[in-house]
Amino acid sequence: MVEALRWNEDSLILIDQRELPLVEKYFSVKTIQDCYDAIEKMVVRGAPLIGFTALWGMVLWAKDNPTGNFEQFLEQAEYLKQSRPTAVNLEFELNRSITKAEAFTQLHGNLVGFDSELERFAKSEMDQIYSDNLSMAKMALDDLDKIVNKPTYRLMTLCNTGMLACGPMGTALGVISYAFSKGRVEHVYASETRPYLQGARLTAFELQQQDIPFEISVEGACSYLMKQGLVDAIFVGADRIAANGDSANKIGTSTLAIVAKHYGIPFYVVAPTSSFDLNANSGDDIPIEMRSEDEILSFRNQRVAPLGARAINPSFDITEHMFIEGIICEKGIIKYPMSTNMVEKLKGSCYAK
Amino acid sequence: MVEALRWNEDSLILIDQRELPLVEKYFSVKTIQDCYDAIEKMVVRGAPLIGFTALWGMVLWAKDNPTGNFEQFLEQAEYLKQSRPTAVNLEFELNRSITKAEAFTQLHGNLVGFDSELERFAKSEMDQIYSDNLSMAKMALDDLDKIVNKPTYRLMTLCNTGMLACGPMGTALGVISYAFSKGRVEHVYASETRPYLQGARLTAFELQQQDIPFEISVEGACSYLMKQGLVDAIFVGADRIAANGDSANKIGTSTLAIVAKHYGIPFYVVAPTSSFDLNANSGDDIPIEMRSEDEILSFRNQRVAPLGARAINPSFDITEHMFIEGIICEKGIIKYPMSTNMVEKLKGSCYAK
Repeated sequence: MVEALRWNEDSLILIDQRELPLVEKYFSVKTIQDCYDAIEKMVVRGAPLIGFTALWGMVLWAKDNPTGNFEQFLEQAEYLKQSRPTAVNLEFELNRSITKAEAFTQLHGNLVGFDSELERFAKSEMDQIYSDNLSMAKMALDDLDKIVNKPTYRLMTLCNTGMLACGPMGTALGVISYAFSKGRVEHVYASETRPYLQGARLTAFELQQQDIPFEISVEGACSYLMKQGLVDAIFVGADRIAANGDSANKIGTSTLAIVAKHYGIPFYVVAPTSSFDLNANSGDDIPIEMRSEDEILSFRNQRVAPLGARAINPSFDITEHMFIEGIICEKGIIKYPMSTNMVEKLKGSCYAK
Repeated sequence: MVEALRWNEDSLILIDQRELPLVEKYFSVKTIQDCYDAIEKMVVRGAPLIGFTALWGMVLWAKDNPTGNFEQFLEQAEYLKQSRPTAVNLEFELNRSITKAEAFTQLHGNLVGFDSELERFAKSEMDQIYSDNLSMAKMALDDLDKIVNKPTYRLMTLCNTGMLACGPMGTALGVISYAFSKGRVEHVYASETRPYLQGARLTAFELQQQDIPFEISVEGACSYLMKQGLVDAIFVGADRIAANGDSANKIGTSTLAIVAKHYGIPFYVVAPTSSFDLNANSGDDIPIEMRSEDEILSFRNQRVAPLGARAINPSFDITEHMFIEGIICEKGIIKYPMSTNMVEKLKGSCYAK
């Protein structure tokens, strides 16, 4: 089985996502500089995976600098944060390593031996995410059995939310992998996910790796597929979730959710508590990143649209909470009334802001 | 101004749509064989445009064969029908030329001089379509002024329904051109129209030619754009319309219509009466063409998806009549109750089946 990220005692092995799905090439990270390059050059993508990669980068630095002090550690962590300045998880994981290094220094007066502690921490973080993803997948399948209740399901997803985005297992695609491992998945429709085609490239790659039967479809075909009765439920991830349950995710998610509601098909959001932003009262408080027009106007440097034509390329949209059957995080499933249930479920969560 | 098709007294000049939008190249049709090639090799596309091209092909044959008889004419028309066997308008226009040739033969005993009569007929057909398209556009703008009533509109469309598909003017894109010529269009969102990208390539080309301000967007972005209040109305074409108003059109149309309904944005279908199929009681009676998976799996012969991955590629979907504000044909606007109003409006139409 392909792994997005593997720790190999003295180096980190990353699958090079720039080459997927046609070439399976690995990228070896031996130093913190390699780590910076891997993130900056997009060998890795997906917010959680970027966060883990950075954490292992700091482990490599600590191993290479056994007599380094806290100020140097801090400097290196700040350096790594610059590799993808907008990635929230990158900063999040690096800040946790800084807190650990500070506490270790206060206790021991220096960072001698901190490399082993940070290595254990990185491993435990990944173990924790795996176990969180697994419990999310179990809850998702349980809920599906209550709501739809069929021996096997035809599921639809958008973008890539598997191990290539999250490290071990994944969120929405993790649900599909888990349900398939239990013999409960008949077919998957992977939306190709324009403009960057994460569905056609990465989700298709992961489904194929796991021998899960699937077809790729264009986003516009979602109404056709649902009307034909080919879709039992939809699972997507989230980039940020507001306090009322409104969820920001890849462009096209809200379109899909509205169509699913029309056909009475349950639509689930699967995301860890680290994706919740309780400072945002609703989706209106979540800023939408606008990306380069070239992603739409050209394909692999071949121009598609007329020269001079413009495109509008919002990278995310907001799915309003009323279109969501449930938001599944490691603390449980949040259903109506979402704002009340969210406060209840997220109580004591160290991730929730 | 670029024309999709121009009659040049002894030849037909076609813009080569295979090269658009990056290269403006013309294809000269001097013989019926050239005409066959132009249709078969997809120099021309769009059902109405293919029909006109074939009609001019028969004019060319008649000019080249002043002493040809009806049997030869019939043989040539049947030959031309094979250039795109599934195109309805191709057969429709060729059958009309056959009827004319038969009547001429009965009257005169031969086809001497028929070339001039057929040339006049072809011209009058194109004039008629232009005047039909124009009256559809006027009715559309009038209705928009009743329903939305703004000085200028932000309009959205899908696929290509302009002169590149229809010959003169076009249907849904014809409405946009007309409204722009009256100073009533502020902005157009052209859905790129996966998988074949007719929007990004052809609609963008036509909009640019006419200096209409526009942006291309991915299909998934429709909910985002509508929620932002950027879209006042949507105009699309139709490939076939059932007796209850259900309309078959390019894949993604039904998705767009459902989302528009959610946001309360009027969604119009613009199509000539030749697109109505009153033998189909509802959309369920309209067969959906499934096209090659390669359109999704690859782009210009570059593989996108993993080798071995499959795709599902329905070329059309059915927009249910309850999502349609009005169906605009040359006989008027059909609104609720659609089945009753359709019978009323289409009475005496020579096109309606």
